[in-house]
Amino acid sequence: MISKLINEIKKKNAPIVVGLDPQLSFVPEEILNKWYAEKGETLEAIGEAIYEYNVGLMDSVSDLIPAVKPQIAMYEQFGIPGLVAYKKTVEYAHSKGLVVIGDIKRGDIGSTSTAYAVGHIGTVKIGDKSIKPFDEDIVTVNPYLGSDGVKPFVDVCNSDDRGIFVLVKTSNPSSGELQDKETDGTPIYEVVAEKVNEWGAESMDGDYSNVGAVVGATYPEMGVRLRKLMPKTYILVPGYGAQGGSGKDLKGFFNEDGLGAIVNSSRGIIAAYKNEKYAGMDYKEAARAATIDMIEDIRVNALGAN
Amino acid sequence: MISKLINEIKKKNAPIVVGLDPQLSFVPEEILNKWYAEKGETLEAIGEAIYEYNVGLMDSVSDLIPAVKPQIAMYEQFGIPGLVAYKKTVEYAHSKGLVVIGDIKRGDIGSTSTAYAVGHIGTVKIGDKSIKPFDEDIVTVNPYLGSDGVKPFVDVCNSDDRGIFVLVKTSNPSSGELQDKETDGTPIYEVVAEKVNEWGAESMDGDYSNVGAVVGATYPEMGVRLRKLMPKTYILVPGYGAQGGSGKDLKGFFNEDGLGAIVNSSRGIIAAYKNEKYAGMDYKEAARAATIDMIEDIRVNALGAN
Repeated sequence: MISKLINEIKKKNAPIVVGLDPQLSFVPEEILNKWYAEKGETLEAIGEAIYEYNVGLMDSVSDLIPAVKPQIAMYEQFGIPGLVAYKKTVEYAHSKGLVVIGDIKRGDIGSTSTAYAVGHIGTVKIGDKSIKPFDEDIVTVNPYLGSDGVKPFVDVCNSDDRGIFVLVKTSNPSSGELQDKETDGTPIYEVVAEKVNEWGAESMDGDYSNVGAVVGATYPEMGVRLRKLMPKTYILVPGYGAQGGSGKDLKGFFNEDGLGAIVNSSRGIIAAYKNEKYAGMDYKEAARAATIDMIEDIRVNALGAN
Repeated sequence: MISKLINEIKKKNAPIVVGLDPQLSFVPEEILNKWYAEKGETLEAIGEAIYEYNVGLMDSVSDLIPAVKPQIAMYEQFGIPGLVAYKKTVEYAHSKGLVVIGDIKRGDIGSTSTAYAVGHIGTVKIGDKSIKPFDEDIVTVNPYLGSDGVKPFVDVCNSDDRGIFVLVKTSNPSSGELQDKETDGTPIYEVVAEKVNEWGAESMDGDYSNVGAVVGATYPEMGVRLRKLMPKTYILVPGYGAQGGSGKDLKGFFNEDGLGAIVNSSRGIIAAYKNEKYAGMDYKEAARAATIDMIEDIRVNALGAN
């Protein structure tokens, strides 16, 4: 799967992913009101509104980007109708040729992680039928339970040609409370990085592994170090834009081949229409303009293009 | 919420919880075949079968136990129809007077954890309406992202009178890969335990906090130590039975008041009908017999009752 993502990144010349994290306050009022009128003040109305919003966003930017990253929490928040919108969003993204990175951050003991892996990136066998319940291409995985919790995902990466990004160093302010603790002089996030190499060796796909890592744009020095520690690992970089990271901070996340990282922006693109810089544009136009600006920033400031 | 759980534990004289983790191989064939006949080889058929199985289990044991713990992965595995079965299971459990511990192990950066918290144990406001999308009483939370990832859940514990159990030391064989790493002589699971005390102080409910901890039955020495480190924390103890823990290992998880811990068994109860010991019983009778045996084991061997 990682080779497919890399191909799409090269084709679009854009190592970026748009985070489809539809907080209710981002959804334009006219879309919300239309669905409230049709379905009342219900979770169903919100599910439909979120999906319409996402479709508009993807229609507007899909020719520019290789992938989208829906954050499942923003859908799960609205119960079953929210998760229906999530599933439909995954399907629509595939219809637009986009790679889908499901930001699910799951992880549990062995048999339970197997269930998550099968449900999200794998195949359920029912009698003679094979069904892919959520059908993301790649998902994010939490490593707190150790190898037991991650290897079932790696197995499904191999059986179904899929990928994962394991949380190594997250972008949030308190990520250091556990992740930066040192053990024999090595911070926990580097202990996880070594594990990512180990797990990743079992699922190589060309020059890179299907087992990637999440490292926040908000910690650029750690990005430089982790880049070197995990040479065959693709890094998913959240925290660009609204969380504070910018193109010049991201240079160290890439390898010399210009590959090795994919940078996510959510709010900065999907809610760009609320930003003064894009005043007068509707949400789709603003998302497109913000995507173009972000790609330019990454190309020039992170990758050194002219 | 923890005081409600404690009241139920006292009323039933049973500090145990039954894990509703319906792996497909546990669901009796006659239930599966009935739903395949009605709905074909579909996820919908499996969702209905799982729900019928769970109803049978709850009808059989609800007078004996204070709580159930559905493991959401086992439902999510089957996509939307699986999650519909999860939601119906939560509702049915409430109709039987059971406290519902949703084993969801979620955790993310701040705004995203808020979405999970609201969706599972909180309230979504839509116009004038308030809706509780999944409506569990308590959920499990992964601490790898630090306070940012946990505090939004604590806030919802306070606003909606709910609870959480934070993963401290999990029951699986590889849990030590990260959790046992020592930092300045303190293992990471104790670093998390100290955080649990800190987070828990913000949501006290009687003698105990709404912020509990998960500590595996498979690590009894650590249980003893963590019990002392977190005196006001309720401990959810997985790993009894099938994973290897037994009543005598669990003494140290309880406080001297006989409270402070609730022990989970999943497979050992819900699939007891596959165990030779309960041969000749149907799945409901076997689950009831296994529940009675487990309660006796905990009362005599962990709590020292005569």
